[in-house]
Amino acid sequence: MDTLRSFLAGSWCEGEGAPVTLENPATGAPLAQVRAVGSLARATAWGRQVGGPAVRALSYTERGERLSALAKVMHEHREELLALSVTSGGNTRGDAKFDVDGAAGVLAHYARLAPELGEHPWRIDEDPQVVLKTGKLRAQQILAPRLGLAVQINAFNFPAWGMVGKLAVAFLAGMPTLAKPATATAALAHRIAELFLESGHLPEGSFQLLMGSAGDLLDHLGPQDVIAFTGSAATGRRIRTHENVLTQGVRVNVEADSLNAAIVGPDVTAGTEVFDALVRDLVTEMTQKAGQKCTAIRRILAPPACADDLVAALSERLQARAEKTGDPALGEVRMGPLTSAAQLADARAGLSALQRDADILRGDPTRTAFLGVDEGQGHFLEPVLLRAKDGRATDPKAAFHHTEVFGPVSTILPYDGSLEQAAAIVALGGGSLQSTLYTSDRGLITGALSAIAPLLGRLVVVDEKGAAGSIPPGGVLPQVHHGGPGRAGDGSELGGVTGLALYQQRVSIQASAGILARTVGK
Amino acid sequence: MDTLRSFLAGSWCEGEGAPVTLENPATGAPLAQVRAVGSLARATAWGRQVGGPAVRALSYTERGERLSALAKVMHEHREELLALSVTSGGNTRGDAKFDVDGAAGVLAHYARLAPELGEHPWRIDEDPQVVLKTGKLRAQQILAPRLGLAVQINAFNFPAWGMVGKLAVAFLAGMPTLAKPATATAALAHRIAELFLESGHLPEGSFQLLMGSAGDLLDHLGPQDVIAFTGSAATGRRIRTHENVLTQGVRVNVEADSLNAAIVGPDVTAGTEVFDALVRDLVTEMTQKAGQKCTAIRRILAPPACADDLVAALSERLQARAEKTGDPALGEVRMGPLTSAAQLADARAGLSALQRDADILRGDPTRTAFLGVDEGQGHFLEPVLLRAKDGRATDPKAAFHHTEVFGPVSTILPYDGSLEQAAAIVALGGGSLQSTLYTSDRGLITGALSAIAPLLGRLVVVDEKGAAGSIPPGGVLPQVHHGGPGRAGDGSELGGVTGLALYQQRVSIQASAGILARTVGK
Repeated sequence: MDTLRSFLAGSWCEGEGAPVTLENPATGAPLAQVRAVGSLARATAWGRQVGGPAVRALSYTERGERLSALAKVMHEHREELLALSVTSGGNTRGDAKFDVDGAAGVLAHYARLAPELGEHPWRIDEDPQVVLKTGKLRAQQILAPRLGLAVQINAFNFPAWGMVGKLAVAFLAGMPTLAKPATATAALAHRIAELFLESGHLPEGSFQLLMGSAGDLLDHLGPQDVIAFTGSAATGRRIRTHENVLTQGVRVNVEADSLNAAIVGPDVTAGTEVFDALVRDLVTEMTQKAGQKCTAIRRILAPPACADDLVAALSERLQARAEKTGDPALGEVRMGPLTSAAQLADARAGLSALQRDADILRGDPTRTAFLGVDEGQGHFLEPVLLRAKDGRATDPKAAFHHTEVFGPVSTILPYDGSLEQAAAIVALGGGSLQSTLYTSDRGLITGALSAIAPLLGRLVVVDEKGAAGSIPPGGVLPQVHHGGPGRAGDGSELGGVTGLALYQQRVSIQASAGILARTVGK
Repeated sequence: MDTLRSFLAGSWCEGEGAPVTLENPATGAPLAQVRAVGSLARATAWGRQVGGPAVRALSYTERGERLSALAKVMHEHREELLALSVTSGGNTRGDAKFDVDGAAGVLAHYARLAPELGEHPWRIDEDPQVVLKTGKLRAQQILAPRLGLAVQINAFNFPAWGMVGKLAVAFLAGMPTLAKPATATAALAHRIAELFLESGHLPEGSFQLLMGSAGDLLDHLGPQDVIAFTGSAATGRRIRTHENVLTQGVRVNVEADSLNAAIVGPDVTAGTEVFDALVRDLVTEMTQKAGQKCTAIRRILAPPACADDLVAALSERLQARAEKTGDPALGEVRMGPLTSAAQLADARAGLSALQRDADILRGDPTRTAFLGVDEGQGHFLEPVLLRAKDGRATDPKAAFHHTEVFGPVSTILPYDGSLEQAAAIVALGGGSLQSTLYTSDRGLITGALSAIAPLLGRLVVVDEKGAAGSIPPGGVLPQVHHGGPGRAGDGSELGGVTGLALYQQRVSIQASAGILARTVGK
């Protein structure tokens, strides 16, 4: 069986740990293996000492050109990458496009931003500010590329978008990357890394790939390094409380659990375009990637006026998806498996927890027969829709406010339709990456900007006029801020130029007006 | 003896813990006592539920008017506050002005910023961005006031500036404050809090004061709350790793230790204005507040051309300060004591550590006789100047790169005058709040913007033309970014409107162009 090698300190290395086998999550067929490498001391130093200067030697415009070239590499190998995404990630072809094309989209977007970032190595964040009323002393904030290594630890659900997106932002910001994909789905990330490294577009040391476990990686990080982590809150906590990370003050960005909500306004009724968009979005968010998205909708706040119609419409659509759940290598399949046995076990355990406070409206968590696979084969879970038991929607202790079931699972929470109750229920989730408000009520939207937006990293609004042109809210586009408060990790990524700040240092330059004009520039 | 009471959940309370006595650090005379309160559950909820809505009900302009009114309150009581700063903080009158007038200055500055923040509850951070090339879907980032409580844990060295500055920024941003001053010097913070609360300018619940220990405060914080901490790295770590802080994802900003550097360019020689500014700044930074400033210069990078002249000039000035060290109640005294017996013991232990890698050039750490006090009375330490032993300046393990002696102590590090060696030495400090470059060499300044600025929160440049109009670099003005990477805590405060972001949530609003224009605004 092939061993997928790491690329560290300028060469490919096979590793020396016990082999871990990657498998097709639909069929269980073994695909490749990975082995953990030894100490990461040399690789981290290599990134800082070889990769950092090489990236920073390029202007923003030149970095943008490299990103654009990498996007082309992805387009040229698109069919191969989509096929690999299907076999190695349990993705339907649509899911695979979401990940692979999404990755290329981030490259292209940051490539387009590059020319507007100026000619200096730093970015200028404000005009010079007067420091003393008398005299010419001024201060001016710049954002300068950090002099360390960007360690990017990615989640299993988006091996392409996760790795490529973080790389694109760090590279444009001026930092070298060491990427660690999640092992279960690392085959796709590995192939993209191979293509990128073979392309010659990335300067030496600017991109390293670590397969398998993180080993002693965190022990070798320092005060100029950045960790960008996407994954579970538990792992995020281990990173944040790691002895060396704390001692060195390593910058850490976490994108973790999120109990995103759909908030249905009291004006939304069956037959409207907003209602149709709502049903479309909910089905997409529950079933795309088999619900394995940190931005998927887990809680559906339904007012009395549309709750029954919503249940009926959703149940019908989900039934159709359930019938088309199976091996995504089959063209007719609309939803694939979860990514691993562990994920399936976690999802089933989460479903049990939810059932303390909610009843299943449709879906059978114990189902074992799916399209194109033998009974019991693969890690499948059909779509499960629940509804909160009476009085539980507003209960701070209810499981659906704490338990993220990372699969095709969502819970309807009946509420009174008021902004106050909606905000209170969203808040019980403890901070989310996104939530979506379905309404055409201008007052409700404005109210949500103050009462709900601060609970989120992104608030999506779908109104009657915009419904036709809206997209399902779980898609994270590079021009949009990604990262929510509290449970979601209080991180901040993407959002166009905003995302560069993670990899740069904010510094005020305090000097005479003349020196600022002649050195910092405009 | 007076008990300085806390102001929590709308009323003053004396506390119930064992009394802790505050004393005059110069004379040891007892001044007042404080007692820890019981559970902070009610106070934290009060801040969120009463204070938050009350602050957010005011527009930015109205909040600015309140801040302006508080600045006037400070001016009206300026003499009383300065006198209290001298007796309770060991401050000379100059030190007292630095703290008290600095506090009023932050209020005034943020008051002036208010009108430009717009009429909406949120701040708009960008124009609407096109999300899809086809269609009218847009995304626009806003910064919305967080719906929690701002817990501000301040350091002992700036009881006025620390508390008032953090309050000003949080209040303008739209968050209620619960301030916890450091106990040793809390008398001044307490008196300011009394004046503010009596003034009626702060809406109910928007400002609470916790005297004594933090008790169970951190146990009651949630995902919309913010902790802004200034103090030691050790306490910062305890906050960051606190169980509930991690579980809830409470936002934490840390300003901690900092081994700030003065970098003297190879072009600087005795007799120039830059040299004179350098000597002036170093004496100020070593002796102002008896060197108890997180922004004081701890490492002086001196090139061969001026090292001897610098030692001679500094030694002479420091000798004069040493002769005028004593009880700051005396007009002739130019430097007061350290703040407590513990601080003096820490500083002496730190000096012992430094002496492994550096020799004392002038200053006697064991001196016990000072102006206006009995032999052995008060917590005095005279200015101590050290110089690195041969070869130690570039030694990553040398104590002066790791040990912040929080007193009138600084070490000269001979270096070769190159940007490369300067950057390497500054980097060994692991991240600093500020460093200052003394040079008129344009190329050196430009190089430092890339090679040194990312190691800092602020880079000060003093050149020949600007030297006369420069100010000592340890002063933190509200228009200037405060917060350095790594050892310094990787925090971000002040810097004008930049500082508001700590207390606000970045959110992308994703909607049709029409909805954005009609609700988010411009």
